[in-house]
Amino acid sequence: MKTMADELFGEFREHSVSEFFRRNAAMLGYTGKIRSLTTIVHEGVTNSIDACEASGIMPKISVTIKRVNDEPEHFKIVMEDNATGIPEQYIPDVFGKMLAGTKLHQAMQQRGQQGIGISGCVMFGQITSGKPTTVVTSTGSGEAVRAEVMIDLDKNQGKIFNKEKFKEKWRGTRVEVEAKEVAYQRSRYGPFNYLRMTAIANPHVHLTFAEPDGTLTVFENATEKIPDRPKPMPLHPWGIMSDDLLILAKRTKARSVSGLLSTELSRVSKAKADEVCRLANVPATKRPAELSWEDAEKIVTAFKQVKLLAPPTSGLRPIGAADLENGMKQVLNPEFVKTITRPPKVYRGGLPFIVEVGIAYGGNAGKAPEGKSNGDEIEEAGMDLIRFANRAPLVFDQGGCAITDAARKIDWRRYGVDVSAAPLTLFVNISSAYVPYTSAGKQSIADEPEIINETRTAIMEAARELRLFLYRRIRAKERAERAGVFEQFLPIIARKAASLAGVSEPDVKSLLKKVSGGIEHA
Amino acid sequence: MKTMADELFGEFREHSVSEFFRRNAAMLGYTGKIRSLTTIVHEGVTNSIDACEASGIMPKISVTIKRVNDEPEHFKIVMEDNATGIPEQYIPDVFGKMLAGTKLHQAMQQRGQQGIGISGCVMFGQITSGKPTTVVTSTGSGEAVRAEVMIDLDKNQGKIFNKEKFKEKWRGTRVEVEAKEVAYQRSRYGPFNYLRMTAIANPHVHLTFAEPDGTLTVFENATEKIPDRPKPMPLHPWGIMSDDLLILAKRTKARSVSGLLSTELSRVSKAKADEVCRLANVPATKRPAELSWEDAEKIVTAFKQVKLLAPPTSGLRPIGAADLENGMKQVLNPEFVKTITRPPKVYRGGLPFIVEVGIAYGGNAGKAPEGKSNGDEIEEAGMDLIRFANRAPLVFDQGGCAITDAARKIDWRRYGVDVSAAPLTLFVNISSAYVPYTSAGKQSIADEPEIINETRTAIMEAARELRLFLYRRIRAKERAERAGVFEQFLPIIARKAASLAGVSEPDVKSLLKKVSGGIEHA
Repeated sequence: MKTMADELFGEFREHSVSEFFRRNAAMLGYTGKIRSLTTIVHEGVTNSIDACEASGIMPKISVTIKRVNDEPEHFKIVMEDNATGIPEQYIPDVFGKMLAGTKLHQAMQQRGQQGIGISGCVMFGQITSGKPTTVVTSTGSGEAVRAEVMIDLDKNQGKIFNKEKFKEKWRGTRVEVEAKEVAYQRSRYGPFNYLRMTAIANPHVHLTFAEPDGTLTVFENATEKIPDRPKPMPLHPWGIMSDDLLILAKRTKARSVSGLLSTELSRVSKAKADEVCRLANVPATKRPAELSWEDAEKIVTAFKQVKLLAPPTSGLRPIGAADLENGMKQVLNPEFVKTITRPPKVYRGGLPFIVEVGIAYGGNAGKAPEGKSNGDEIEEAGMDLIRFANRAPLVFDQGGCAITDAARKIDWRRYGVDVSAAPLTLFVNISSAYVPYTSAGKQSIADEPEIINETRTAIMEAARELRLFLYRRIRAKERAERAGVFEQFLPIIARKAASLAGVSEPDVKSLLKKVSGGIEHA
Repeated sequence: MKTMADELFGEFREHSVSEFFRRNAAMLGYTGKIRSLTTIVHEGVTNSIDACEASGIMPKISVTIKRVNDEPEHFKIVMEDNATGIPEQYIPDVFGKMLAGTKLHQAMQQRGQQGIGISGCVMFGQITSGKPTTVVTSTGSGEAVRAEVMIDLDKNQGKIFNKEKFKEKWRGTRVEVEAKEVAYQRSRYGPFNYLRMTAIANPHVHLTFAEPDGTLTVFENATEKIPDRPKPMPLHPWGIMSDDLLILAKRTKARSVSGLLSTELSRVSKAKADEVCRLANVPATKRPAELSWEDAEKIVTAFKQVKLLAPPTSGLRPIGAADLENGMKQVLNPEFVKTITRPPKVYRGGLPFIVEVGIAYGGNAGKAPEGKSNGDEIEEAGMDLIRFANRAPLVFDQGGCAITDAARKIDWRRYGVDVSAAPLTLFVNISSAYVPYTSAGKQSIADEPEIINETRTAIMEAARELRLFLYRRIRAKERAERAGVFEQFLPIIARKAASLAGVSEPDVKSLLKKVSGGIEHA
């Protein structure tokens, strides 16, 4: 007998993850013509910087956006780096398989982590232009590979076409994505501003950008110092759930629960691990594979009863106040700049983060990216807030972000600033191995009270310096005006007085000079 | 020679889609203790309603939330329906495999569509409580199956434990999820309000809800009419991309391009298909399998040059003004209610949608769900905006939604309403086979201008009726006050006048009665 259920379940199907993201491309940032183009640049550039840093290479990256066939919404995006290159056999998986990558299992501060980004570019190019993505790469062996990649969306697999090898003394990777239904704009949301923001937060990166009209911009690196390579950061007991512990138990090489806790978690000594096992009533010598859910729950609870050092912050890699200052000076050329790197703090009871703030005033600060009109985007005048997480720019979804919230809570008038008109750029970067993003797009940070407070504190600290600068400038201006008055009236007064007194007119020049001199040194 | 690349790519891994969503549970709505609990109820209930409607069954659904071991953040959620039941062999895939389901390939108006929802519940229960989800189901064959399901997150596969079969005269499915780190609240964001909203928008659904404290609420169905079964809606040429056309070409049974276009797309006759092929310069007799990307692009372009009927709206299933009115009366018991179902409109040049609006005033309208305090959630007083897409409540992410935008753009004072205080519930439902959600969470609709305008128009139409009602009420109140004045002073005047005139006091009662009578009929 055929039931209604049999009829309904005759339609039962399974989808591949790439088919899922094809249907939900907006989840990957492919929503709107401008944002889609910026998303491609973002995915390529973050991958390149991560790859360089993982191998201690000074990143040198170029991005070129070219119009194809003079069509208005049809572009080729070429991104090239000097990172390690990609071994030939990994090309199909890196570019054609979603949820695959080198960063998935490592808890360290990196920009990417899901193994979707660059395959997402290939997919978007493919579904809008029908064209494969071209990859040229060399690991520095003297030989380079050139191949075209498409994704078999039904199988979530990369397909390679027209592969060729050739001699080339070069190391790095070049990716060429062709996409339609994208638009180029020099607005806040376009690739130019994205790269400008990247340059500020990554002063060690050398960036070259060629726009569709041929304009070439070089963002020189403002420091020669290669940042430390990212360090894996084991989970800290304050941040774990029972389920995390069981996953660690499955993967560990330790042969006892006590060994598991002391080798796989941070800040847990052998003695501490034994103490926790005792409190949890779980034998310290039990084999990790035999750890039950109940054991894991008891251990998580027991950890709350022992004293532990706060999570290590050695794995966090803030930009540093000096480098940030160089970066802001390089890009914004301001009259005033103040940068601050705060000491590490924790949120949710245990997850470490570091806030960095920079304020730039005058010069190109507070302005939308220079040049050209912004098309139909509306630019707000006044303060330009630029947000970063682990040095990657957050361009979209500004409204719901903890950083925006913190900046809004400042009474800027107290610092002598009219935010609707001042030439001010406010820079904020949050570094953490666990940035609490609000969504898949990773463009906005959740409202954790500790993060908001710490950000607010850091902004106020920098703003106090700005107030001092503005105050001095006003004083100087007042003196200049006063001097102007002297200059105008002193000769007249001198003449009149001399005429009244019947004496000859005195020379006031030296007197005036004294007044102006005083101003120059103010 | 081992290159830096070899070292780096030694870490290359592939993740399963369920591992991905474990790490990114927030993308599925598992963020925050209250929202996580509501998400479980939402996934269970939408699945049940979809399954009933797909087979023409009047949905009868019960939800029970019980505390486990008196722990504050540990609950069991039991959801039972009277739908078709699930054939035994599909249990592991329905509950334990993400991106698998009966609704993936069909373009029709349904609540769910990704095949993630209920597996997501199983995953969330498993990673927070360590417990499997219990499923009891019967297709009405006289035999039921009981099984426990967990997800093997590494493989994205369901694992079954303790399966047993027993005789049972019953048809339907019961799902029991045990979860920790969730909280129960009767706030706007809790399960009670979610179910209340579901009842309003689905007057054919019978809902029973048992809360953790034992309170039982029955939302009776307000109509006996089973909605039409959802109809698959072929894509309309206005909404397709070249890539869509190639996917159709791969799956079609048609043997020519012209056949492909006329059978797989809506509003395309054989003659129209031939015309398009001619314009596109693609042989009408070409085999679909041989359709190239260039062909597809030319066809998409050619479709813009021919006249076509607008997409069919027969597949859209709005609630209907009468049923909506019944639903609102049933749940809110208001003094005034006005509901409107607008005719179909299109957005983005071709995608059809229907807006429905209901305004209820007085009674329980405008109030947070009755009873109990709302804990730490802050409830706003005044107008209660409840948003729906395809009859499924949108509870979260209200700020960025097109519906919210439309409601804010109304000058409510013109309709005599003070939105900060009025006992007003504004209901909006958008029906479409292509609801443009802003994100994976499907809780907010993108700012499509046509949708905002149409929603605004519908709200104003209903609000005009409300103004009339409020105006009449004010008039009635004024008359009542006037009558009060008569009642108070008429006898005195009569007495004084009689005394002055030296006559006996007249009987004013009949006169007063006339005035009050006039009020009663106002």
